[in-house]
Amino acid sequence: MKSKGRITLPVEKGMDHLLADIAQKWGADAVRNSDGTELPANIKELGLEVYSTLSMTRNDQAWAKTHEHELTQKFLMSDPVTATSGTVKIEIMKGWFDQQFRPDDIHDVKKWFEVYDRTTGELVPVAQWDYDKQSRTVTIRNAKKFHVYTVNFLAYQIWDTTSMYNYLTNNWTGEHVRPMDPRQPETRRHLLQHLQEWIDKNPATDVVRFTSLCYHFTNNFQDLNGEKRSRYRDWLGYHDCTSVLALEEFEKEYGYPLRPEDIVTEGYMSDLNRMPSRKYLDWMDFIQRSVRDIVKEWVDITHRNGKKAMMFYCDHWIGSEPYGKYFAEMGLDAIVNPCGCGMELRRITDIPGKIEKEVRLYPYFFPVNAEGKPNFPDGDPVGDCKKYWRRVRRAMVQNPADRIGFGGYLSLAVTRPEFIDYVKELADEFRQIHAVASQHKHSKAPFKVAFLNVWGKLRSWIDEDINDWTKPYQGGIIECLSGMNVDVDFISFDDVLKSGVPGDVQILINLGDANTSWSGGEYWKNEQLVTAIRKWSYEDGGGFIGIGEPTAFPFQGHHFQLFDLLGVDREIGYGKSRAPLPSTPTDKHFIMEDAVCADGFKNRKNGVFVTKESARVLLSDRENVLLAANTYGKGRAVYLTGLSFTAENTRLLQRILYWVAQKESELKKWFSTNPNIECTAFPDAGKVILLNNSYEEQRTVIYDDRGKSAEVVLGAFISKWYDTGELFR
Amino acid sequence: MKSKGRITLPVEKGMDHLLADIAQKWGADAVRNSDGTELPANIKELGLEVYSTLSMTRNDQAWAKTHEHELTQKFLMSDPVTATSGTVKIEIMKGWFDQQFRPDDIHDVKKWFEVYDRTTGELVPVAQWDYDKQSRTVTIRNAKKFHVYTVNFLAYQIWDTTSMYNYLTNNWTGEHVRPMDPRQPETRRHLLQHLQEWIDKNPATDVVRFTSLCYHFTNNFQDLNGEKRSRYRDWLGYHDCTSVLALEEFEKEYGYPLRPEDIVTEGYMSDLNRMPSRKYLDWMDFIQRSVRDIVKEWVDITHRNGKKAMMFYCDHWIGSEPYGKYFAEMGLDAIVNPCGCGMELRRITDIPGKIEKEVRLYPYFFPVNAEGKPNFPDGDPVGDCKKYWRRVRRAMVQNPADRIGFGGYLSLAVTRPEFIDYVKELADEFRQIHAVASQHKHSKAPFKVAFLNVWGKLRSWIDEDINDWTKPYQGGIIECLSGMNVDVDFISFDDVLKSGVPGDVQILINLGDANTSWSGGEYWKNEQLVTAIRKWSYEDGGGFIGIGEPTAFPFQGHHFQLFDLLGVDREIGYGKSRAPLPSTPTDKHFIMEDAVCADGFKNRKNGVFVTKESARVLLSDRENVLLAANTYGKGRAVYLTGLSFTAENTRLLQRILYWVAQKESELKKWFSTNPNIECTAFPDAGKVILLNNSYEEQRTVIYDDRGKSAEVVLGAFISKWYDTGELFR
Repeated sequence: MKSKGRITLPVEKGMDHLLADIAQKWGADAVRNSDGTELPANIKELGLEVYSTLSMTRNDQAWAKTHEHELTQKFLMSDPVTATSGTVKIEIMKGWFDQQFRPDDIHDVKKWFEVYDRTTGELVPVAQWDYDKQSRTVTIRNAKKFHVYTVNFLAYQIWDTTSMYNYLTNNWTGEHVRPMDPRQPETRRHLLQHLQEWIDKNPATDVVRFTSLCYHFTNNFQDLNGEKRSRYRDWLGYHDCTSVLALEEFEKEYGYPLRPEDIVTEGYMSDLNRMPSRKYLDWMDFIQRSVRDIVKEWVDITHRNGKKAMMFYCDHWIGSEPYGKYFAEMGLDAIVNPCGCGMELRRITDIPGKIEKEVRLYPYFFPVNAEGKPNFPDGDPVGDCKKYWRRVRRAMVQNPADRIGFGGYLSLAVTRPEFIDYVKELADEFRQIHAVASQHKHSKAPFKVAFLNVWGKLRSWIDEDINDWTKPYQGGIIECLSGMNVDVDFISFDDVLKSGVPGDVQILINLGDANTSWSGGEYWKNEQLVTAIRKWSYEDGGGFIGIGEPTAFPFQGHHFQLFDLLGVDREIGYGKSRAPLPSTPTDKHFIMEDAVCADGFKNRKNGVFVTKESARVLLSDRENVLLAANTYGKGRAVYLTGLSFTAENTRLLQRILYWVAQKESELKKWFSTNPNIECTAFPDAGKVILLNNSYEEQRTVIYDDRGKSAEVVLGAFISKWYDTGELFR
Repeated sequence: MKSKGRITLPVEKGMDHLLADIAQKWGADAVRNSDGTELPANIKELGLEVYSTLSMTRNDQAWAKTHEHELTQKFLMSDPVTATSGTVKIEIMKGWFDQQFRPDDIHDVKKWFEVYDRTTGELVPVAQWDYDKQSRTVTIRNAKKFHVYTVNFLAYQIWDTTSMYNYLTNNWTGEHVRPMDPRQPETRRHLLQHLQEWIDKNPATDVVRFTSLCYHFTNNFQDLNGEKRSRYRDWLGYHDCTSVLALEEFEKEYGYPLRPEDIVTEGYMSDLNRMPSRKYLDWMDFIQRSVRDIVKEWVDITHRNGKKAMMFYCDHWIGSEPYGKYFAEMGLDAIVNPCGCGMELRRITDIPGKIEKEVRLYPYFFPVNAEGKPNFPDGDPVGDCKKYWRRVRRAMVQNPADRIGFGGYLSLAVTRPEFIDYVKELADEFRQIHAVASQHKHSKAPFKVAFLNVWGKLRSWIDEDINDWTKPYQGGIIECLSGMNVDVDFISFDDVLKSGVPGDVQILINLGDANTSWSGGEYWKNEQLVTAIRKWSYEDGGGFIGIGEPTAFPFQGHHFQLFDLLGVDREIGYGKSRAPLPSTPTDKHFIMEDAVCADGFKNRKNGVFVTKESARVLLSDRENVLLAANTYGKGRAVYLTGLSFTAENTRLLQRILYWVAQKESELKKWFSTNPNIECTAFPDAGKVILLNNSYEEQRTVIYDDRGKSAEVVLGAFISKWYDTGELFR
């Protein structure tokens, strides 16, 4: 295997010698230039490709400063104010950070602001209120006493979110960076010219690393008694792409106006987890086409100059949608994203189309790590690195990235020589995985799994916890699956309504809280949807896995609309007089043949009870079903309250999948009896890789696909390749 | 204090001598005759009043057998059946116990049965289905494949619920007892005659103990593979009062028909916890007036014969509604109920009007106790007795019953002499409490608390857990309050909508799961309701306590509609992008000055977060608020996730009440520093009673209402009376 290539290093001014050493040690073949760093003079001698960072929407601050009316905009909602008299004054910026936002007082406030009575849901007539620009206050007259009022208002974003975040978190200083809106005609033209000038000034650049594209994901701050904190964060929010121009173009195209409330949606801001309105879906599509058109111009210029175009899959990525309809049309050559787990790895490596995929691993070479704890030089950077790599590695075996990279300051990295040594190991390990896994198909489970939700393909490898403030990042079912030998797809309710369950899908998973875009809310009242899935399972033997509050919509006596398929339902407060069927766990079941630890279950939904005698409870918490299996005609279904990502739970999920797919007899093919070790075979290559995902030495028995077995001992955290013939002698 | 009276004993055949001994020891002044027991010959010599049990609806089984078309009826719903072809056959009795129910095939099934498509919620036209009496099967033609169907059907109840329960639980044998419907004209007339004959045959009877009145509460059984089990149990369900006659009379009076689905309500059977429809409320009122008319005839006959009429407040109590509009009009002299806790005690002793109130204490003199564990002769009857008396006693101090009683077999009671001795103590303790508490007012908190829900007064001293199968009986807030020196009332949303919050109420409590009749569901969309409560708190200083999911209805961006008053709201899945305000608990607060143990919190509602900076979090579980206090204009509010009944929680609730009412400075009046001891003063009588509610000796400091204090040591489980002057010397 090659010991060089597929790794990108950050450059740091004055570290030329160091760079050469580390590059050689790690086998790096590219460097990444970013804001505030300069390329070493000898870069070409080192044989390193150069990736140079360019943020189109914030690079030319001179232009931004003189075109403040062409900064990005967004709708915000004021704090709700309870009317304690007939006149209500609402300071609209209260609760928001005035260094991030400035209310738009250029455009007509009576058109772009809305006052809502949140006690009735009624729009307050514009004649009934006025806005004072000076005090940024809306005064409502003839208010109804003790009704609650809010103001939807349009604001300019006057401080770029990433810039602001780094100022506030990493103590950056200097002038606030302003985010330009590339849709604005003058700015749009200027940026093309600016890009050409920038390329001319950076002749050593091989790859223009757009960091990133047009519109930032949403991260709205507030000033809470001096503490600047994020108040609303949606990594997938279509907010920063707003402007009066965009709204006017939208209305012209769609024939109806998108009103502030269509985005504000009672203050939920069209949260990713909320059921989206038709209008919001239109808006998303509209923005995606705009972003495609803008970025294509940039890519064309880049290509004309003989450079490659790479996109950073974070920050200003909104509207680019790697899983969307228009992504390929932008013509990007490469994409890079930060990556701390298997779900994030698959989110990039599963992107359709020919595009080079790089992931930036953790830790950054910063004084503190992603959790805010000491890292370089006083922390445990090797431990930190392994913690994330442990999750990423297993997903790499499934679908490898083309490249890996690191970020931060090399001068910090070298303070810990054992870290430099460890990354050499990791880089070799990655290159070995890539060499095989990018060239050969591995053996997989004899079924394909599809997640079913409102978003489908568009939100591949994303789950409901992505924006959750209250849960530390951990990942659940999707994280387990990211490293399993299973084909995974993502389909939407509309896909099923249009064409039925795809013919190549054997298992559907519906996961999430009731009334979210994941679980599906009112979709489950759609008779066409429920009958299609019932038929597919009952007659065609389809497998269904429901997690949390699957198929949930309170209607006609059931909370879980597919109670008959799942064999369970959930009591939500007003059916307590009904006695559920007994929930005594079954003694023996294929799904339970390995150790199961209910402590690793999460999102427990209280009140889940048995509705069908055919259902077998596998795990319960007194009267509350945690795990149950049901048969349904030719089909099978499993209900699961929720899983966090652990070795035991991954095994449990694996058994659930094989049982639901009725492929129990095929489980023990390329199978490790010890769940801490995962086994993937590449039959074409005659190779098997074993991963010890634990920090201890593990012993296991591995089965090949013909019933042969081999006992293996694998050192702590080791991945090891075997020739199949040798292993199963 | 008197050492005799106010206690009723059960008689047992052949136990004449024993009866005299025990009666004397306990100071009993009455005996109770019940099914299968005979009065001793010397009963009058013993000076004991005689209560004789009569069950009007089941006493004359000869009549019942020849009038099977006049047995009680009810609507049932079949199990839901998924159509797997165009023809669906539903065995309507599947899932029900065929010894309890017989489908009504006397009346027109096309009128009294309904077939529902539960996938669409549509009624299936009668032309599309047929019913076969023989096989008790509905066949639906042209069914939509993979839709779910149910049948609402009318059935006769052919086995009286109490009789059935005792057969199945206590191994009774003999012929099944049939429940007659006293509304049926022939039966109604016959019962009057039967009552007169019965009185004539029971000359020794002083009090006719109607056990009980017309219609049983709902307890529908199923035969689950041989196991006969309760499948639907609503202690407050208006089901057994159904008949074609009643339905026809109802339609005539109200001008619209009550359809099966109006009762069945998607299978929820108009569960007490469900938001009731207008039609169901009409039905309840209709039945109450019928029961009043029927029972009044019985009471009149009883009175004409010189006897008193007593009602057993359980079993066939439906429609009598001691807190309803018509109860007093029946003219009953006395009421008796089983009583295992403070909530049950207050449920009887707070009944308005002049009526003698007796409670039957636990344990019954049965071989097994209420939990199915050994009792007499091999269990711990004294411990069992104390366990319940511990809860009942403190409520007795608040509002005493007039009498206590026991049930079961005396021959079993005497197997445990220490039990006989303990009940003597208990009886004396009760008589002492009664002597003072029935004659004198005790000092109370300077505020009145009202529970606010759909039911108001009608469901006094009842909470959402009364029918819950999944929770062992424990009681929460209401149980705590049943023994506190606080005036408690129960009001409905309609009361507030009609007349505002009553002038004498200083604190409102709204408690329950979202969308239940307790929390209030869609009522919280009513602007009149929310503004009335906001105004009452903000301008008049009213206190509001929200427990569980108070004021909950997802609307206009909030789940808790009174989020501004409570200072908290609950995230239910699609607002996770919003960062809540910090939930760091406050260091010091009046409410938290005594020990608080979050382990005793129940019904935890995940996702409760702070919405107002004015709110102070008192207790949180990571990001989840368990207890918070807010100020709101002149008013205050507290949010609480839920409490189980413990001494610490009772103290916590007491502090919450005083804080919300802004009467902190008055807390330490007739106050015990040790929460295990409760203190109630009767100033007119110059007396104070201290209750040690624990099983250990306790030491405390007691405060009077002028700041004087006294240190007291009280033996385990002791209640003790003091002369105020002596205690605070």
